Amino acid sequence: MRRIKLTVAYDGTNYCGWQIQPNGITIEEVLNQKLSKLTGEEIHVIGASRTDSGVHALGNIAVFDTNSTIPPGRFACAVNQKLPEDIVVIHSEEVPQGWHPRYQDCTKYYEYHILNSPIPNPLCRLTTSHVSFPLDEEKMQAAANYLTGTHDFKSFCNIRTNTDDTIRTIYSLDVIRDGEEIKIRVSGNGFLYNMVRIIAGTLIRVGRGFYQPEQIKEILDAKERTEAGVTAPPQGLTLVGIEYSGHVERGQNILRRNTSPEREKNGKNLF
Amino acid sequence: MRRIKLTVAYDGTNYCGWQIQPNGITIEEVLNQKLSKLTGEEIHVIGASRTDSGVHALGNIAVFDTNSTIPPGRFACAVNQKLPEDIVVIHSEEVPQGWHPRYQDCTKYYEYHILNSPIPNPLCRLTTSHVSFPLDEEKMQAAANYLTGTHDFKSFCNIRTNTDDTIRTIYSLDVIRDGEEIKIRVSGNGFLYNMVRIIAGTLIRVGRGFYQPEQIKEILDAKERTEAGVTAPPQGLTLVGIEYSGHVERGQNILRRNTSPEREKNGKNLF
Repeated sequence: MRRIKLTVAYDGTNYCGWQIQPNGITIEEVLNQKLSKLTGEEIHVIGASRTDSGVHALGNIAVFDTNSTIPPGRFACAVNQKLPEDIVVIHSEEVPQGWHPRYQDCTKYYEYHILNSPIPNPLCRLTTSHVSFPLDEEKMQAAANYLTGTHDFKSFCNIRTNTDDTIRTIYSLDVIRDGEEIKIRVSGNGFLYNMVRIIAGTLIRVGRGFYQPEQIKEILDAKERTEAGVTAPPQGLTLVGIEYSGHVERGQNILRRNTSPEREKNGKNLF
Repeated sequence: MRRIKLTVAYDGTNYCGWQIQPNGITIEEVLNQKLSKLTGEEIHVIGASRTDSGVHALGNIAVFDTNSTIPPGRFACAVNQKLPEDIVVIHSEEVPQGWHPRYQDCTKYYEYHILNSPIPNPLCRLTTSHVSFPLDEEKMQAAANYLTGTHDFKSFCNIRTNTDDTIRTIYSLDVIRDGEEIKIRVSGNGFLYNMVRIIAGTLIRVGRGFYQPEQIKEILDAKERTEAGVTAPPQGLTLVGIEYSGHVERGQNILRRNTSPEREKNGKNLF
């Protein structure tokens, strides 16, 4: 029995998120089906990030156990022949049996994309969130700076979360404007349920002038979900990749990440 | 009776092109339906470019005649309330009755997007064409240079075209690499049926090394469709915009066009 690790990219538009649901097709389910077909075994993948319905990934991680004789590096290519076009396994390799994608130290990298223009753009509607009101990206960055570091993010967490430990560390949180596109890039040691989308929704409120940047501190201190902004829509969010203790699992290069090996490990490796 | 001009952006993925077809929904048909509903009249739009099935637009142009009292500039907003998310009218205005979008001097701007990477990217599969073999963009540009200017483009035209006049002028044709993305940007006074996609397919063959750049001259001279490369897939192509004698009709800014008014009119205004 070998444990195979997959790096998976997907367009989440047509899926009810990663995790198997009673109603609606999920990424996990499709991977299980296609890997089972490929190996002739009953395969159950374990994912690193259970992304929400409509959220995308360039480098989510999953593992599964198999007795198949397919060489580990060939699983990506073999299963891609069976997967629909909106799910692509971009890498496969063997890992030790005990290796679990959720129980290792890691850095997760997310991007939230906003189209900040008076009129929506049909060509990027599935991967950006459209905000027609002008946003002040400098104020958004000033607000973002209050969120970096180790904090109790209870105010930035869906109330239906099932954890009591709401302390997380954000390594970097950058707001980058390029014309009408605003990217919010965040890296951290883990994120609570809806945390990135609530951060995005709160920064959008700051950008519109509804909150002052310094109010972020009060929102954190309140430890109360209702104090933060709304959860921003899922289609703007992409899990860019996950870095396991020095071992970089990256998605593709479309987000123009700078991954020079000389660069210091400051939570910006995958961007 | 007034003539209203619309600038229309659309994701062509789910449509059988612009022009009304017996089987399958088209952009023209949806615009007719929604404008008829809006005005209570039977509206028939006339489009500038009859884009193929699966081809996108950021700034196609259409006109229609109406007795509606809706102010010309308000049509965009009003019809967007009724249109599906993948079609957006980005501008509306009144034009003189005789103004026809296909019978005016104009410059058309197209972009063809290629993802040149070993592995496809599910997040841009609907707006790029994936080429897994390495492409040499310098050779592609050298080949492109043979196509600029006024030529008989019979070799670069679908044989089912219904025109005898296959002479056109290409003002600019640039091959731009940005990481794994290659953009082919072309402007001209008009394009034959499938011409941009055949140019893209031919440049891809040059980029792979199957043709030498200087062979483009022979292909032009042959005036024979079979001499050029295959028609590249539709999803990579976007009609960026149309410029009518000094009057710029542009799509949105997502392609990061440089449209400074100082810039000389050399067929690069909309890029």
